[in-house]
Amino acid sequence: MSNPPPFSHIAIIGLGLLGGSIGLAVAEHLPGATTTGYDLDPATRQRAAQRGLVTSVCATGAEAVADADLVIFCVPPGAMADAARDLAPALPAGVIISDVGSCKVSVARALGEALPGHTIIPAHPVAGTENSGPDAGFASLFQKRWCIITPPEGADPEPVERLSAFWRQLGANVELMEPAHHDLVLAVTSHLPHLIAYTIVGTASDLEEVTQSEVIKYSAGGFRDFTRIAASDPTMWRDVFLANKDAVLEMLQRFTEDLTGLQRAIRVGDGDALFDHFTRTRAVRRSIIAEGQDDARPDFGRSDHKPG
Amino acid sequence: MSNPPPFSHIAIIGLGLLGGSIGLAVAEHLPGATTTGYDLDPATRQRAAQRGLVTSVCATGAEAVADADLVIFCVPPGAMADAARDLAPALPAGVIISDVGSCKVSVARALGEALPGHTIIPAHPVAGTENSGPDAGFASLFQKRWCIITPPEGADPEPVERLSAFWRQLGANVELMEPAHHDLVLAVTSHLPHLIAYTIVGTASDLEEVTQSEVIKYSAGGFRDFTRIAASDPTMWRDVFLANKDAVLEMLQRFTEDLTGLQRAIRVGDGDALFDHFTRTRAVRRSIIAEGQDDARPDFGRSDHKPG
Repeated sequence: MSNPPPFSHIAIIGLGLLGGSIGLAVAEHLPGATTTGYDLDPATRQRAAQRGLVTSVCATGAEAVADADLVIFCVPPGAMADAARDLAPALPAGVIISDVGSCKVSVARALGEALPGHTIIPAHPVAGTENSGPDAGFASLFQKRWCIITPPEGADPEPVERLSAFWRQLGANVELMEPAHHDLVLAVTSHLPHLIAYTIVGTASDLEEVTQSEVIKYSAGGFRDFTRIAASDPTMWRDVFLANKDAVLEMLQRFTEDLTGLQRAIRVGDGDALFDHFTRTRAVRRSIIAEGQDDARPDFGRSDHKPG
Repeated sequence: MSNPPPFSHIAIIGLGLLGGSIGLAVAEHLPGATTTGYDLDPATRQRAAQRGLVTSVCATGAEAVADADLVIFCVPPGAMADAARDLAPALPAGVIISDVGSCKVSVARALGEALPGHTIIPAHPVAGTENSGPDAGFASLFQKRWCIITPPEGADPEPVERLSAFWRQLGANVELMEPAHHDLVLAVTSHLPHLIAYTIVGTASDLEEVTQSEVIKYSAGGFRDFTRIAASDPTMWRDVFLANKDAVLEMLQRFTEDLTGLQRAIRVGDGDALFDHFTRTRAVRRSIIAEGQDDARPDFGRSDHKPG
């Protein structure tokens, strides 16, 4: 049998950007599979049902996970422990538990403590937009993006392979990684950029000499690229920074040192140091485009991945 | 006569992203006007002629400016003084001199010293991409973007109005501003964002624990948005930071204070402070979209502005 569906019933807990996108992607790529969904927020459940994010939206988490062979927690990192504890009595035997959290050490610990004895294979699809909630998801969110799976030490390879197959069928590339290394990599590729973007957007909002209206009018000079990621879900990002504190603070320390170096070059008028630095960073962009993780077209190729 | 062409012969000195885009935009919006162009680099001149960036590419700057009624310097801020001095003897009487530099105080000083007695009306179209050189320009670059004109104190209103009309006909919105205020506004909306982006891309390239390949693979988590502006022209940006040093260092100081505040909130686990900050910055994004300076669509609306 080629490409057997790795799971026949996927329960999605949390129906925001990620949960909704998984539901839509399963419908598109795994038409034989059933999806059930639950969200704490009744308005989100109602909207998820209207958009058809999953086969059926359930009134309780227990109902959603009954008979599931895969349960994916799609809630902010800080809400994982409570969500898992609530469902623990209802989980069927043999079910595989996973998640989509941006921090893996803390989430693995939270799920492990809440669900002792269960097979837990954490995962993180590195994909997203600045939008959140049940209207934000779309089926192609994971296309050509990486999904990092962080199996606990000594994990049985069989569920790991099934979860990998699942993500590949949704269009993602899959990579296995140690949880601690994941958290360090994401601290630099995702968490630090978000922190910096949140900071500069705040700085620009607080100036007395430059009005808010001027900041907005002239944002095409570079600022607007930062506002996109600084518009991301505040709850999720609060949780990410608290959950991955050590790695984020470490990367922030390196960033601050480098910034101080460039600040000094500007202050003393060292044009050669600035030019050398700016030439080096240009090459990184070329590599990202060559690897297909962004696009040189003016729309960054985002027109290939429309919501809906 | 409605909409008389404000200039009949525009000389463009420097045929990179900005100069080339002006030439193409004039051809599209002011079909009666002639454009001549010159670039120090023979390869750029050749490519500009192949792409038809201007009506005619000239072998010398003196040839390009002969008979022009508007000369626009489209060279990096640090090259303005030399470019202007070289052309001084060839400039026709009554010509209006302008430029597109990202810093206005230093460029106005350089042009004023190089061209005493001439009518100099500096301008800055706040538009660009990360690409540079004669292949980068496109006619719609200025559509719906702001062009800031910074007339010197006591300037004759007539040439200011002609230059404003010229930019409006290329599709831009025009705003008049004091040069020093321009430099402060752009320090926060453009120069600081570029400096931060250059820094973080450098930081991510220098890590020992995370490989360059990992940084590139997982860049969709946020990092890639920074690499775009960190791929901008190194020569131009070296000149910008040196030319607008005081305003950039001032804005950097505020940014660093704000970053230290968020760093502390992470370190002590103050989730409320993080959540409040992240909620506030989200509103800025909405204003930028409402003002038409960016787009909520996944492609940021950049598909509306394709290079041509």
